[in-house]
Amino acid sequence: MVTLEDIENAKKRIEPYIFETPLIHLEGLDELLNCQVYVKAECMQKTNSFKIRGALNKMLSMKAEDLKNGVVAASSGNHGKGVAFAAKLLGVKATIVIPDNAPQIKVDGIRELGAEVVQCKLSQRHVIAKELSEKYGYTNIHPYDDYEIIAGQGTAGLEIMKQLPDVDFVVVPIGGGGLISGIATAVKSIRPETKVIGAEPAVLSRYAKSRASGERVLLEEQKSLADALLTLQPGEKNFPISQKYVDDVVGVDEEYILLGEKVLLMEGKILAEPSSSIGIAATLQGKLKFSKNDKVCFLISGGNVGLSQISKL
Amino acid sequence: MVTLEDIENAKKRIEPYIFETPLIHLEGLDELLNCQVYVKAECMQKTNSFKIRGALNKMLSMKAEDLKNGVVAASSGNHGKGVAFAAKLLGVKATIVIPDNAPQIKVDGIRELGAEVVQCKLSQRHVIAKELSEKYGYTNIHPYDDYEIIAGQGTAGLEIMKQLPDVDFVVVPIGGGGLISGIATAVKSIRPETKVIGAEPAVLSRYAKSRASGERVLLEEQKSLADALLTLQPGEKNFPISQKYVDDVVGVDEEYILLGEKVLLMEGKILAEPSSSIGIAATLQGKLKFSKNDKVCFLISGGNVGLSQISKL
Repeated sequence: MVTLEDIENAKKRIEPYIFETPLIHLEGLDELLNCQVYVKAECMQKTNSFKIRGALNKMLSMKAEDLKNGVVAASSGNHGKGVAFAAKLLGVKATIVIPDNAPQIKVDGIRELGAEVVQCKLSQRHVIAKELSEKYGYTNIHPYDDYEIIAGQGTAGLEIMKQLPDVDFVVVPIGGGGLISGIATAVKSIRPETKVIGAEPAVLSRYAKSRASGERVLLEEQKSLADALLTLQPGEKNFPISQKYVDDVVGVDEEYILLGEKVLLMEGKILAEPSSSIGIAATLQGKLKFSKNDKVCFLISGGNVGLSQISKL
Repeated sequence: MVTLEDIENAKKRIEPYIFETPLIHLEGLDELLNCQVYVKAECMQKTNSFKIRGALNKMLSMKAEDLKNGVVAASSGNHGKGVAFAAKLLGVKATIVIPDNAPQIKVDGIRELGAEVVQCKLSQRHVIAKELSEKYGYTNIHPYDDYEIIAGQGTAGLEIMKQLPDVDFVVVPIGGGGLISGIATAVKSIRPETKVIGAEPAVLSRYAKSRASGERVLLEEQKSLADALLTLQPGEKNFPISQKYVDDVVGVDEEYILLGEKVLLMEGKILAEPSSSIGIAATLQGKLKFSKNDKVCFLISGGNVGLSQISKL
């Protein structure tokens, strides 16, 4: 498991290299979402997503010996960019395995950081990362199923509790569960009465189904606009943490995922990925209900979205 | 003239109805602009621009008697939206005169607040507002050349000085000069060593030319992407205030105005009008130079920009 102390140590390790991102009250959305709307703007994080937190914590925790052959990571894009950033900082080679249909802005961002990109079918990314690891001796940096990754992502939760100590709800996008397991550990350790809620695409409700059955369900591949949340099964290390700390997980329909991004941009004036505004989308769909005075922090996980994607709104 | 006390009184008058907008450190832009980049996000203000501050202060200062026939305002759009909001609040009729080529989102926003819209040629807007005022007894709410309007806009300056007390530079878009004359009065009264800089389209450099000649120059009509900054002459009440308090005014070329908006959206993740990111544009063009540790607050004046406009980026 991961403790609050692990997350505090991660913070000390990574804080020279990351931004403490703003936590912004978007009052213009209060009435529409019937709560006090705060966003933790990880879209404004270095590399434009929270993933740099975990990648840095993992790689800064490793011995030079373990990094000398380079690293490999399977990713939908943002974890790859985080690993590429950390690898550049540490002067090691990085290879990122990402799906054919990942947004171009994510592929370009990884290449600009000097990493090699290998593209493949979505379902093959972890298989190929493992093969490359075995063939070349690369260290495989898992995107979520790793305690150092979880502790790194949890540092966003520490910041939320410092920036808005009396927050009532923290709403977090869920894919494999790296972010929510870290954030929930931080939030619940500091203030158990704050509720932590996960939001996932309804077509890929691996967490809701796993919670219902009490064990990690494996789903079949599906298409979703939430390109960063396509993982088919909760992580082995993440699921038990989420069972301990996460209060609820809700599924969001595709049209609301798009609407959430549009509302955040056009009404809130903040640009985020469709995956990242899924908590706002869940509220718009009526899957989450709050009271007018509830302080709700929506974790905006990333902002790697190209102009061509915006024009589709 | 306007005093700090006038602005403090304006604040008391309008604060129940407006948002204290966030002042956000966009660390991701620090390196590019070579300073500590802060934005005062009036794009997130109610009605999505600062103009509501002046309109509310003006109309809340007036006697019911003076409002009973309704109000009229000439505007490029945002002032009209502010006046429409204030009129709705006070239960009076509003007529807004705006140019034919104003962005549709601005026209729609005014109509949604229940005001009547009259469209005309850009150069005719003040003439027509005056005619309507005389014909129907409407009170004409000027967009900038009015001490109550100036004091209202100045409340944004009070907030900046509270949110970032040691700010080194405040950079403000200039059209007629309502915003900068209010902000400069607040900032310089509180902390004279903070520099206040204006940014205007180079094709419509009415302030730079007026400063050079020592009197208010009247320019010929020009096209600019900065649709909110098309005024042809500094305001009579605004110019003397700017001469007293504003340290410098710079002109920005059209391609940089577009680039400023794009950089703020794609790198900063904040959506603003082209007129509103003109301070960032000035810095990108090299018209403003800072030192790495300077804290620079860019006033982001509005966010009324439609999806069709974004797709042109």
